[in-house]
Formats: sequence, structure tokens, C-alpha cells
Amino acid sequence: MSQTVRIALLGAGTVGAAVARRLCDPRRADLYAARVGRPLELVGVAVRDTTRSRDGIDPALLTADASGLVERADVVVEVMGGLDPAPALLEQAMRCGAQVVTANKQLLAQQGPRLEALAAENGVGLDYEAAVMAAIPVVAVVRDSLAGDLVTSISGIVNGSTNYVLDLVARKGVAFDDAVRQAGELGYLEADPTEDLEGLDAAAKIVLLARAAWGADVSIDDVQRTGITGLTDDDFETAAANGKIIKLVASAWRSGPPENPRVEMGVRPVALPQDDPLAQAREGANVVIIEAESAGRLRLHGAGAGGEETASAVLGDIVRAARRVVRSA
Amino acid sequence: MSQTVRIALLGAGTVGAAVARRLCDPRRADLYAARVGRPLELVGVAVRDTTRSRDGIDPALLTADASGLVERADVVVEVMGGLDPAPALLEQAMRCGAQVVTANKQLLAQQGPRLEALAAENGVGLDYEAAVMAAIPVVAVVRDSLAGDLVTSISGIVNGSTNYVLDLVARKGVAFDDAVRQAGELGYLEADPTEDLEGLDAAAKIVLLARAAWGADVSIDDVQRTGITGLTDDDFETAAANGKIIKLVASAWRSGPPENPRVEMGVRPVALPQDDPLAQAREGANVVIIEAESAGRLRLHGAGAGGEETASAVLGDIVRAARRVVRSA
Repeated sequence: MSQTVRIALLGAGTVGAAVARRLCDPRRADLYAARVGRPLELVGVAVRDTTRSRDGIDPALLTADASGLVERADVVVEVMGGLDPAPALLEQAMRCGAQVVTANKQLLAQQGPRLEALAAENGVGLDYEAAVMAAIPVVAVVRDSLAGDLVTSISGIVNGSTNYVLDLVARKGVAFDDAVRQAGELGYLEADPTEDLEGLDAAAKIVLLARAAWGADVSIDDVQRTGITGLTDDDFETAAANGKIIKLVASAWRSGPPENPRVEMGVRPVALPQDDPLAQAREGANVVIIEAESAGRLRLHGAGAGGEETASAVLGDIVRAARRVVRSA
Repeated sequence: MSQTVRIALLGAGTVGAAVARRLCDPRRADLYAARVGRPLELVGVAVRDTTRSRDGIDPALLTADASGLVERADVVVEVMGGLDPAPALLEQAMRCGAQVVTANKQLLAQQGPRLEALAAENGVGLDYEAAVMAAIPVVAVVRDSLAGDLVTSISGIVNGSTNYVLDLVARKGVAFDDAVRQAGELGYLEADPTEDLEGLDAAAKIVLLARAAWGADVSIDDVQRTGITGLTDDDFETAAANGKIIKLVASAWRSGPPENPRVEMGVRPVALPQDDPLAQAREGANVVIIEAESAGRLRLHGAGAGGEETASAVLGDIVRAARRVVRSA
């Protein structure tokens, strides 16, 4: 048995670099050792270009051999994103008996059920809090905290980029096209903003939440989706004249008879009253409302993006996974 | 190995009765079996008076022999409250190797560290989400979701009874004494309202949260506490004239140098700006703001009391504990 819990990090982008720095921060390291029961050891960081220096990461940890790194780890943390080679590496990790943590929303939306099945088959955990709304612990809440309850609906502002745009229009009176341009300049939008503006990012998140809440076999094709690109200045003026604010709302709810429940999901712009809790989300903030049979209405609010904020969720999942490693040792 | 996970329920008050009904509800039972991997079986409900009928609970389950019931269980759920005989029964349960779930805030505030140590010694879990803010999953968030992060402060409206009183004064213009009387008539206050009005209930909750967040060795005597009974109509008028709202705020924060951190805690009435997130808590609602180094500011909002809402948290902990039973079988 290793004296440490060996962590392999796949990817060193904004989130990966923040995770690596925190794992190597001596102050945090003591904390993690106390919480897990054994020290965490970052055994390597897989990157494409090992010659590029990465602020705060010991160059000796960098490797281009992701597959070789996976073989040396108890917990494999995938923060590279994309659909190649992430799934193959996660599969390899699970077959080797490693616990898996991923922040890869796109991968989970497309292949989540297959990866969950593979994790179960290999007796390992698959944690993905960071894939949905960064540090807002919504996956843990619907999957674990409400495991004794019956979630009836989930709705929220789950995409900070579009919320930034809509907030500029609603509160600063910026014209829609200018707001999109400003959000792009400030880094709120990807180079290709389609994922955000057409609601695809929000749709992927609501799919992950519907699965976590209900174990539902749903995919992104099941989401009734309308983005914000079709909105006009007229729409915003009409909303404002009626004292309302347009937000891009993602939602999922159970319908049909109790013995044969169905899950429905939608992403669409909605004109909300000013005092609606979802209307309160400013700039890049996220908010989600969960309704459950016994708990009533819970609301979670926080930053839904950001490297450091997403790292918080990844690190929480790493501690969770490392505890499993120690427990099963 | 038993074919079921055997649940013993100690107490059948408002929360206990709600938990029992949910455990025996066939729709929920199927759900729990799927989530745990084995059916949950309520093997008995310990009450003082077995002759009194309890709505929705099979009389055959009632027993006055709490100690005998504990011996027959994999998970012991204590919702009787008070300091006698709850601790002796929980100790017996842990020594028998049963997982323990409790909603007993008073007991945990006074004897939490001793019970935690006993749980560790016997290799069992001690879960208490229901002891703080009912279904708002704040214990899980600070203890588990933020386990990879460093919580810097916690503050909130954690007592619904005093919030109901203060909300009546601030938003309905009711005189303070009348508001206390109305809250009592509506069941928002205990027969002896001192626990609520003097901030003792809030102090107990902030102690439990400080322990969950920092593993801090703190007690209720460490809380700088001022209740709301000293407030006068003048205080409310001054606050209103300045556009502020008086709330009873409980808070805990880390201070001192990183290598030797201290935890400080307070409960006191504070005049907050109208747009402060804590000022938004209406009637009996609770809200808590958690600041962490990486996650930034998270806010959780929901009902902080109620039998059914508290049962949601107890049932979540039961599923968590039952999963441990199945895992270790």
C-alpha cells in the first residue's frame, strides 16, 4: 500500500493549473492529509506540450504520456475537456481500479451513462461536481443530500456567459448586439460563442442534473431548447415595459403518473418578474432552485464559472475519491 | 447478512412521525431500495407511550424498550431530542456497530466531539444534517463539498422563529411585543421561547457548523451572543429610517495567522441594508452564506424548520448511513 494517495492530473488549463497549485500548496496539503487520513501526492500532470512552463507547477511533474501516468495513480482527475482522448483515458483509469474525477461536461452529457456503468462494473467512483456550475454543489445536493427525498423540479440560471449578456441589456440598457460583443471582449464567451448563446451549454448541464436527481436515461436531444440569439431589442423593451427581466432558464421536471414518471427538460429565454429569485442573478452569477417533496424549495447561489471556483469543486471530489481509496485499502 | 437494512427510530414526534411515514410509503420504499442497493426496513419506533396511536405508523412497530430496539438495528435514528436518554442510546448503538443518525442539535452542541470520537472509535458514521437548518444541506456543503477548499466564514439567518418575529416588525410594522405574541400563537416559538429569543438555538447551530467546517474544538460558551429581547421599538424605527432591516445574524469566521488559526463565533441582531442577501429572508426562511478561499461566496436558502422538511434531511442521512452498511457487508 502506498503511503500517499497518488493523484494524476490530466490537463493543465485554467482549472487544471489551479488544482495543481492547490494540491502543492503546503497549507492545503496538511489540511487534505488530515481530511483524507493520508497525504495526497500529485504524481504527474499530463499535457500536450511539456516544454511550456506552467506557473506554479513543478516542470518535473509534466508528462506527455497520459496513459503511462494513469497507470501510476489511485485517483485520476480529468480536466482536459473534449471528447478525445479524455474518454479513453478515463476508461483505462477505471479498468485499472482508479477512482475518477472529471469536470468534462461535454463528455458526461454525451457518454455519462456508459461511463457510470463502467465505473460500477469496476467498483470505482465517478465524481463530476465541477462539470455543473463550478463550486455550487448542486450535484451533491440532488444526488446525495436529497437521496431520501423526491426531487420534483430543478430550474436555474446555469450559464454565466448568457446571464452576463442579458444582465448588461436589462440593467445597463446596452443593446443586445453590443452586449454580446462586450461579453466576448471580457472573456465571458468562447471564441465560438454558439455553445453558450444557443443554450447548448445550459442543456448539457440540465441533462447532468436530471440524471443525478432521477437516474433518468436522458440525453441532450431530449431538451426543448431555444437560445438567446433570436431575441431582439423589441423583446427586451417589451419585457422592461412590463417590469420584467429576460433570463435564459434551464429546467427539468417530473411529469406523468407516479408509477410511470417521465422527465422533461427545457432551456429557453423567459421574461421573469423583477422579484423572482432567478431574476436576481447578476453578471456571471448562477442560481438553481430545487423543489423536493419533503424539503420544499431549496435555492443555491454562487459563481458558476472561473478556474479557481471550478478547482474548488474538483478538489472536493478529489478528497471524496481519496477517502474511498483509504477506506478500501 | 440481513436482506434488508434495519432502521430503528427513536422518537415519534413531528419529525419522527414524518420519517416513519416516508420509510413506510411504498413509492419511497422502492426508491430507497434502488438508491441503497437493499430495501430499508423500519424495525421499530421507540416511544414513551405505546398505547397512543400515531397517524401513519403501524402500532405493531411501537415499543417502549428503546435499548432492546437499538440492538436489532443497522442504523439508529434519534429524533427524540433532549439530553436523556438520547446520548446513552446513541452510545449503545455505536458500541453495537450501528450507524447513527441524529437531529438532536442540543445534544450535539453539548457532546458532539465526544460522540464523534466514539463513532470513530467504533468505526461507524455519525450524521446530523437535520440538526442544522432542516433540509438546507449546509453540513454536507461545509464538511464534504468544500472538503478540498478552505472555508473562511459562515454567516446566516439560522433561526426561523426570531426571523418570523423580526420580519413581522420590519415588513408589517407590527410592534415588537405583539410580533413575539403572534409568533407564539402561530407555533413559531416554543412554550419557553428563551432558546430562540436569546439566540441560544442560533448559537448551537453555528457551533455545529464551525465544527463541520474546521473541525474546530468549540462550544456554545465560545459564542459572543446577544438575543433579540433587548431590542426596542426605537431600534426598529431607527433602522427603518436608515433603510435598514434588523436580523438576528449568526456567524463564524477564521482569524489569526494561517499557521495558528482561531475560530470566532457570534450571534447578534444586525441592521442590514435592504439589498443584503441576509435581509431577503422572509417569515420563517433561513439563509446561509459560506465564503471559501477558492469557491468564493456560496448562498443556500430554504425552509429552516418544519417536520416534513427536517425529515428530508434525516432521510438523506439514513440513505447515506444505509449505503455504508451495504458497502461494509
